[in-house]
Amino acid sequence: MTYCVGVLLESGLIMASDSRTNAGVDHVATFPKMTTFSKTGERVIAMLTAGNLAISQAVVSLLQKQIDEQIEPNLYTVSSMIDAAHVVGNALRTIHAEDAEHLRKHAADFNRSILLGGQIAGERPRLFNIYSAGNFIEAVAETPYFQIGETKYGKPILDRIISSNSNLNEVTKCILISFDSTIRSNLSVGLPIDLLQYQTDSFDASNKRRIADDNTYFRQLRKYWAEGLKRVFSELPDPS
Amino acid sequence: MTYCVGVLLESGLIMASDSRTNAGVDHVATFPKMTTFSKTGERVIAMLTAGNLAISQAVVSLLQKQIDEQIEPNLYTVSSMIDAAHVVGNALRTIHAEDAEHLRKHAADFNRSILLGGQIAGERPRLFNIYSAGNFIEAVAETPYFQIGETKYGKPILDRIISSNSNLNEVTKCILISFDSTIRSNLSVGLPIDLLQYQTDSFDASNKRRIADDNTYFRQLRKYWAEGLKRVFSELPDPS
Repeated sequence: MTYCVGVLLESGLIMASDSRTNAGVDHVATFPKMTTFSKTGERVIAMLTAGNLAISQAVVSLLQKQIDEQIEPNLYTVSSMIDAAHVVGNALRTIHAEDAEHLRKHAADFNRSILLGGQIAGERPRLFNIYSAGNFIEAVAETPYFQIGETKYGKPILDRIISSNSNLNEVTKCILISFDSTIRSNLSVGLPIDLLQYQTDSFDASNKRRIADDNTYFRQLRKYWAEGLKRVFSELPDPS
Repeated sequence: MTYCVGVLLESGLIMASDSRTNAGVDHVATFPKMTTFSKTGERVIAMLTAGNLAISQAVVSLLQKQIDEQIEPNLYTVSSMIDAAHVVGNALRTIHAEDAEHLRKHAADFNRSILLGGQIAGERPRLFNIYSAGNFIEAVAETPYFQIGETKYGKPILDRIISSNSNLNEVTKCILISFDSTIRSNLSVGLPIDLLQYQTDSFDASNKRRIADDNTYFRQLRKYWAEGLKRVFSELPDPS
């Protein structure tokens, strides 16, 4: 399974993904699920994928091939994020046309969800949730985040904290806690976490971190959060 | 959907269920999902059900009929909780034999999960998770709780707090917070909550409460918990 979150804020965009891939419990591996396409000063596009890994890799390869061979439109030349979402949606449709029938013969669904976030010079940052069918929805101020994969464990904390005018650091903390809750309760989601913190109009994708088990900040956060929850819990009034 | 939790402690047993039933979003109703069978001083048995409501009601009717018509074995005469679990499992199998084929013709699965907890004089309290197939597993000290229905949103807090030597009030608080998280994040789970707090060797089922939106304690708990979480969250160190 997988857990990915994208959050669109007035101040920027945060994209985060775990990196555990499994086929059953006896075939567990680590694969990053975040791919970035960026030209400093002009565009930053980040893509998170959940579902069949072979389909993900096929989509990423096709998008990269379009860039390398200058096939238009591609993620390095489109002039808006909605065009970028169409490019990715169409790549999904191309792979679907090639693979879906074969997958069906092996009783496997063509399942793939993609979060696509970023900013292209000339517009504000935008965030899309692209479905298997290649169509998509866009985040708005009222619903500023999308999750894909194993979404439920980590949703309550996002619902409590995030609004579109939250600040980047606050939301980064919240996302890491959401990952902590998910990782504790579900074996199919695992470290490391890839996390991109993007500031509006920076056109700079360099604030991308890989957070592994030995990350001091994440360890602190998990510890303080667990202790804080227990403290708040113990201070709650007992039922009469 | 539904959310039910049963927790087995050294000091007793807690059973809790929401009461929202829905078929699609345009057919939402309130049905209690907890049924108790008790003889004060001798036995307390509580049953929580998730899944197809018609199957639940058919199972409860059959169990009640066995008691009323003194058909052996029944929940008023069995001498252990494992026998009670067999009685319920067999009732499920009887209903399956009657309904499953008809449900299949309407593309509906025979899906039903049951939590059965209680104590019969002569043994300690016990808790079972009974599957659609009528077979079951029993809670142990290492895994003292079961959830059925919409389980994921409310699991992290249970994982953090509950152990088999927690006390009854502590676990009651924890369960109510688990319901709060679930209700906030999923429309298919709703108030009121039916909650039974049973103390080992009391053989008394009278500590059963219905917690609705106007319950002062639950409102306080939700408020203090939300404020406490936000306070702990705001005190966490920012990422560097």
